Amino acid sequence: MARKNKYVYLFANGKADGKGTWKTLLGGKGAGLAEMTNLGVPVPAGFTITTDVCTEFYRNKQKYPAALKKQVEDALAKVEKAMEMKFGDPEKPLLVSVRSGARQSMPGMMETVLNVGLTTQTIPGMIARSNNERFVYDAYRRLIMMYADVVMEKAAGIEPEEDRGIRQQLEHELEKMKTAKGCKLDTDLSADDLKKLCVIFKKKVKKILGKPFPDDPMEQLWGGISAVFLSWNGKRAISYRKIEGIPDDWGTAVNVQSMVFGNTGKRSGTGVAFTRNPATGEHAFFGEYLMNAQGEDVVAGIRTPQPINKKQKGSSKLLSLEEEMPRIYKQLVQIQKKLERHFRDMQDLEFTIQDGKLWMLQTRVGKRNGTAAVRMAVEMAKERLITQKEALLRVAPHQLDELLDPMVDPAAEKKAKVLAKGLPAGPGGARGQVVFTADDAEAWAKKGKKVILVRNETSPEDVHGMHAAEAILTAKGGMTSHAALVARGWGKCCIVGCGALDINLKKREFSVGKKVIRQGDWITLNGTKGLVYTGKLNLHSADPEKNVHYKTLMQWADKTRKLGVRTNAESPADAALARTFGAEGIGLCRTEHMFFGPERIKAIREMIIAEDEAGRRQAVMKLLPFQKKDFMGILKAMEGCPVTIRTLDPPLHEFVTLDKKQTRELARDLGISTRKLETRIAQLHELNPMLGHRGCRLGITYPEVTEMQARAIFEAAADLTRKGHKVYPEVMIPLVGSPTELANQRAIVEKVAQEVTLKKGKFPYMIGTMIEVPRACVVADRIAESAEFFSFGTNDLTQTTFGFSRDDIGSFLPEYLDRKILPADPFQTLDQSGVGELVAMGVKKGRSTRKNLKIGICGEHGGDPASVEFCHRVGLNYVSCSPYRVPIARLAAAQAALR
Amino acid sequence: MARKNKYVYLFANGKADGKGTWKTLLGGKGAGLAEMTNLGVPVPAGFTITTDVCTEFYRNKQKYPAALKKQVEDALAKVEKAMEMKFGDPEKPLLVSVRSGARQSMPGMMETVLNVGLTTQTIPGMIARSNNERFVYDAYRRLIMMYADVVMEKAAGIEPEEDRGIRQQLEHELEKMKTAKGCKLDTDLSADDLKKLCVIFKKKVKKILGKPFPDDPMEQLWGGISAVFLSWNGKRAISYRKIEGIPDDWGTAVNVQSMVFGNTGKRSGTGVAFTRNPATGEHAFFGEYLMNAQGEDVVAGIRTPQPINKKQKGSSKLLSLEEEMPRIYKQLVQIQKKLERHFRDMQDLEFTIQDGKLWMLQTRVGKRNGTAAVRMAVEMAKERLITQKEALLRVAPHQLDELLDPMVDPAAEKKAKVLAKGLPAGPGGARGQVVFTADDAEAWAKKGKKVILVRNETSPEDVHGMHAAEAILTAKGGMTSHAALVARGWGKCCIVGCGALDINLKKREFSVGKKVIRQGDWITLNGTKGLVYTGKLNLHSADPEKNVHYKTLMQWADKTRKLGVRTNAESPADAALARTFGAEGIGLCRTEHMFFGPERIKAIREMIIAEDEAGRRQAVMKLLPFQKKDFMGILKAMEGCPVTIRTLDPPLHEFVTLDKKQTRELARDLGISTRKLETRIAQLHELNPMLGHRGCRLGITYPEVTEMQARAIFEAAADLTRKGHKVYPEVMIPLVGSPTELANQRAIVEKVAQEVTLKKGKFPYMIGTMIEVPRACVVADRIAESAEFFSFGTNDLTQTTFGFSRDDIGSFLPEYLDRKILPADPFQTLDQSGVGELVAMGVKKGRSTRKNLKIGICGEHGGDPASVEFCHRVGLNYVSCSPYRVPIARLAAAQAALR
Repeated sequence: MARKNKYVYLFANGKADGKGTWKTLLGGKGAGLAEMTNLGVPVPAGFTITTDVCTEFYRNKQKYPAALKKQVEDALAKVEKAMEMKFGDPEKPLLVSVRSGARQSMPGMMETVLNVGLTTQTIPGMIARSNNERFVYDAYRRLIMMYADVVMEKAAGIEPEEDRGIRQQLEHELEKMKTAKGCKLDTDLSADDLKKLCVIFKKKVKKILGKPFPDDPMEQLWGGISAVFLSWNGKRAISYRKIEGIPDDWGTAVNVQSMVFGNTGKRSGTGVAFTRNPATGEHAFFGEYLMNAQGEDVVAGIRTPQPINKKQKGSSKLLSLEEEMPRIYKQLVQIQKKLERHFRDMQDLEFTIQDGKLWMLQTRVGKRNGTAAVRMAVEMAKERLITQKEALLRVAPHQLDELLDPMVDPAAEKKAKVLAKGLPAGPGGARGQVVFTADDAEAWAKKGKKVILVRNETSPEDVHGMHAAEAILTAKGGMTSHAALVARGWGKCCIVGCGALDINLKKREFSVGKKVIRQGDWITLNGTKGLVYTGKLNLHSADPEKNVHYKTLMQWADKTRKLGVRTNAESPADAALARTFGAEGIGLCRTEHMFFGPERIKAIREMIIAEDEAGRRQAVMKLLPFQKKDFMGILKAMEGCPVTIRTLDPPLHEFVTLDKKQTRELARDLGISTRKLETRIAQLHELNPMLGHRGCRLGITYPEVTEMQARAIFEAAADLTRKGHKVYPEVMIPLVGSPTELANQRAIVEKVAQEVTLKKGKFPYMIGTMIEVPRACVVADRIAESAEFFSFGTNDLTQTTFGFSRDDIGSFLPEYLDRKILPADPFQTLDQSGVGELVAMGVKKGRSTRKNLKIGICGEHGGDPASVEFCHRVGLNYVSCSPYRVPIARLAAAQAALR
Repeated sequence: MARKNKYVYLFANGKADGKGTWKTLLGGKGAGLAEMTNLGVPVPAGFTITTDVCTEFYRNKQKYPAALKKQVEDALAKVEKAMEMKFGDPEKPLLVSVRSGARQSMPGMMETVLNVGLTTQTIPGMIARSNNERFVYDAYRRLIMMYADVVMEKAAGIEPEEDRGIRQQLEHELEKMKTAKGCKLDTDLSADDLKKLCVIFKKKVKKILGKPFPDDPMEQLWGGISAVFLSWNGKRAISYRKIEGIPDDWGTAVNVQSMVFGNTGKRSGTGVAFTRNPATGEHAFFGEYLMNAQGEDVVAGIRTPQPINKKQKGSSKLLSLEEEMPRIYKQLVQIQKKLERHFRDMQDLEFTIQDGKLWMLQTRVGKRNGTAAVRMAVEMAKERLITQKEALLRVAPHQLDELLDPMVDPAAEKKAKVLAKGLPAGPGGARGQVVFTADDAEAWAKKGKKVILVRNETSPEDVHGMHAAEAILTAKGGMTSHAALVARGWGKCCIVGCGALDINLKKREFSVGKKVIRQGDWITLNGTKGLVYTGKLNLHSADPEKNVHYKTLMQWADKTRKLGVRTNAESPADAALARTFGAEGIGLCRTEHMFFGPERIKAIREMIIAEDEAGRRQAVMKLLPFQKKDFMGILKAMEGCPVTIRTLDPPLHEFVTLDKKQTRELARDLGISTRKLETRIAQLHELNPMLGHRGCRLGITYPEVTEMQARAIFEAAADLTRKGHKVYPEVMIPLVGSPTELANQRAIVEKVAQEVTLKKGKFPYMIGTMIEVPRACVVADRIAESAEFFSFGTNDLTQTTFGFSRDDIGSFLPEYLDRKILPADPFQTLDQSGVGELVAMGVKKGRSTRKNLKIGICGEHGGDPASVEFCHRVGLNYVSCSPYRVPIARLAAAQAALR
């Protein structure tokens, strides 16, 4: 049981204080270790210091709770007993690792120190026990390097320039030694070389950091623990949390665990594995390992790792673990099966083989890209590992983006020559200009450029640039490298281990054979196949319907959800596309987009310039045939589904932004003086157009516009109905704030409907309104008297509720997000506590008048999963979003119904 | 008892079906006639057709309820019996008047037809009974004229050009006849002349209107009734209702009453009287009359009427009624006393003397200007005619405006030469450019000019121009003329009966002796004394404190009200002025107004242009001494009272609107290139500045500004406190929409407060926020966690709740008001059903967190009586308004407490 003031949780001897569900307290890693221990899986003994300590630490001026020291010491004693070794003991020295472990995995974002406990006192004992002096000094030089970097440099408050940190300087010494000895690989250095290197390292550390490398094991241990806690608030971790939306107050746990070594010789090794393929979702054990190596070597992507089994090996010449150590492989397969069955989800495992013995160091739910997430969810449900409901909840709606993301056009690909081939770490297609640093990637992207970040390997310092880039391409690293891991999390196109690339960072170029690609050159990646092309190849949208798992999942979603999903579309093509994505109607058709054709814009300008109603009416009626044709097309494309058409909304001056020449021409066309035209245009200028003469205010002052639009809609509907088509137009009046406004516009629309019915016969229609100013929510009960439906325009409603102009928030919103004045951009995710309260009020009041009032949302929030869940909760009938977001909304709606 | 389907209410023989309180059903006139009848006052018998008939008439395509005809005929029969005459009878013919009478008086806005029942059949009988052929034909020609105009021309749907209507054409015939006979006055025409004139009139009517003048009395009666009902929706009536805020669906009643004649000879006359003086409020019977005249002659202002008694006569040479008919006068005095006592308010009476017998034709609550309203209310309460509470409710708050309205500066008046003298019909002073038509007055005023409308006399057609003018000056008419009546209702400066004026409308000029004043020339009026001056004399504000009645009333108001009243002020002078008006603190001190001095604007511009916080801080700190001095002044001027100071609110670009030259100079001053300065200024441009980077968004992104302002406030407060002054600064953070925004700013302000306290000692202060975006109302409970007070900024809250930019509504608000989409400009009167609901929510939520939260309002609504009542109702602690509105708010608050 978790207890108050219990800060340290032991796992040892097949028994743990904690368990797998206590991630909040123990972090993901700690909970996994505890659970594995309880399951009888071989786990090196250790203990977890809870996230509470982290929280306390930051709350209390970076001091630990008083009780911690004793608890750590007690736990350490029990670990010593379990492992039959002693920390700092000259004879049987115990070494430990100190690792972070937050509630949610933040790969590489926090610090780790390995081999803690190696001192001049314990080295002889280690050598005696391992009978491998080279291994011990290699471990020692690793400890010094890591500790100097992670603990000492940070503690000294030194912020070195790039490439001038202690780590780089020690690495430089390592390279010097290798050169001096004529070695290529680290492993070529002898025990003696390494022993000397350790001496050099320690001198360097003292000189640069002004303090000797500590020779006391407990000092090393506490240094490591503090380094991990401090790294929770390191730059990288903070920026990662911001991207992933992880709260700052979660804190991290610290795991102190007995070291096992994958680098003690040829019967040792270390690896990473997934119970299913995280890139494709295929149900096949998948992983990579390196013989005679420590764990960091696999993830860092410096050496190319070996495949875990024959199936995965493919054409690779590298030996697989299955071939190299069949007994260990068999044991590993059993363990992975047990763990997946136990945790009922794909597991991401870390293991080490020390001298022929398998140790499990980690199990956690594995990250996966969207394609894999969908496949795993569906297949696990079919295997009855999970239920259909669970399957629906397993896929984050935004992961579907990837399935809808563009692919390289196969036709274009057929003609193009492949420049290089790498590992397909993130599927989809992308094209962009080559950049070589994360900072460049971010800077170029800010200027609106599309870039592809090309690196030898990526590290946590690169995360901001990786996020900004269209895709990531690395020369080194495998499917479990940092780049692959991060790209997978974001569903980003990524190719790793593309060994043909020879990168010259200084010159900002890379070459493949004789071909040189410079910064700013365009390349195209096929992340699904791992292919790199020069130049810009065509991309085209994916057809998710071809994906059988996606189709199954979406069928389950449609059965489950209560919310309808419509789309925002202005053209028959968009409407048709949205239908293939599952849209059940149009929630917002903006008619003003149809006013910009050359013939049309002239008529609308004529209308704007006209001096009286007669002139306006004459001009506006010229638009009738165009609009009618538009509506015919859209209604037909959405046959059988409702189509909500909004009457003219934007301020009129948007139609008359003209330069001098255009002004002269328009004046001539209209037969008025340029001066007069300029005066009229100047009159249309508004100080705050967002709050000006627009929406139904136009329809009220210029009733002929509403009348023309209603006529176009109804004539189209009547003609189609007569021909046997099933069409359901819904006329939507924008920006209504008072019941009288809607009543005024409704009367006009109704009158036209009657006239058209008399002339052309009956057709179905509804009249409703957009709710997009706060007042409309407040008086929704009275507005509902004239409305058969409401559609919340949450873009404008957000603007008016906050008093934020979407066009002008750039000057303060970034700071608002940085300083956490706001938790998120309210234009991306519906502000539930403010705007949402008004929406809820509008729904309640609207239905108090008209019980069966149909209510939807047509702001951009309609495609945001959190907002969709909100819409479900307040009882909306449907959400409407852009075509590409329709599948996301469908899944989000299903999840909302399940939660 | 009022009954359903009872449409006609009789009053006859000292007994009436209705009573005085049934104004809604019978209209004001009908209810007054009923009550007078019941009181035993001599009233000619008649009946009232209810306002329900009017409503029904318009609801039912201008058809009367079926039961009406019979009820009118029955009532007419009873009137005949009471008056011992018969309608249409050749021997003893009864004539009737047909008059309008709405719930609230709308003087002259609807139609009247007199002498109905005169036909070729009844004329001989009338002549026989009156023994006065001339009188009968005079009445007949009046009937034809009025009927042709009011009933026939309107019914024919003819809309004649100005001065070409049937009335004008008949008047032309009358003038022709007078010229032919060498007469000056109508009364000089003989019976024979008039008889001939009637024949000419009838021919003319038939020719022009295509129908003969009806010779059937019942046709005349129903024509008259319809004319009155139709005139409810005449142009004049509609525009008057709009100005006065009378609902369209009230409808008018129609009063059909036996005619009595003031024009039968020398023992006859007619007059209008008030039980107290409606211009000064003095408790003295006051009125005017004309011998041998019909009622319309007095009101029309064509003949100068005689004073009613010796007291009022003054230096006039005209005989008063008290002298001319002492017995009748005595009877009238008794009746007026009885009526005032009965109705417990000043009465406006109409009477007619026919052949030595007094008849009362009307009693109603008399209109009065603000000065009079205050005096009457206070004196009546002291006389114990009414209670103090009633006295407070008797004065419309906006009437106090007049007492605060400017007066002509006595010093300037002493030096100026009086151009002309007239009757002081509306007190106060005014100056403006002379115009001669109502249309000109309106057009000039729309262009922002101040005009004085000069007319021979005014008529209901002039109302729009009278409203637009600063003051009204007429050559003719008395204290009860149309001009006097209307000006009194509005509290407008007005001089009537200024006989020295010789107006030439065609030339657009008037002369007084040899002096000619042309259109556009400036004149100044002293409406309190009736004096006209040429040119622009200085005006200065009134000192209401010198008015003992005002002082008494305001004392009663202050005792009664629950709401505090503060003022919006930015300078010590304004603060001091507001205190004399009774302000109990400052509710809004806008600090940015203090940034515009030459030294200051430079510093603020430097701050805006600065590239980093250090530069901004350096620049902004230059403002500290200025702001501190400002706050010292204001805090001292409001010593003992709270002073709410708002931190910087407007978008920064408001401080850098520069022309080319200023830009160059500023660039030079700041030591940067013009180009750089221009770029920075361009960056500040916003598409919707109202919703942009302003309010606390500035304080959050530029914390140094908030810090400087807090320091200036607190240093001023600390210095003053140390010197023994009692000062209560309240720091108010603007435009807060999220609790985090306020918490951020509060932390800065608190920190400064602690620093200043340490340095200079303790001082009291509060920190709070403006509630001016809808979101703030929705999350008010959480905002209240960091706020000790709220102040509703209802200007911005109205903008964001409606989505209306106050600067841009000009393009649609007028139409919204015309079409009744909105009942009133929401920036003038708080929109209670929309904005008000949000205010109520904010109050409720705010107090749910902090029970003793101090809440006020500082939008311009704080001085609007209806809005003040709302503020009282939702439990605000105070309202804050401009200094001149403070007394209005005090009275409105008292009335709210009483209601």
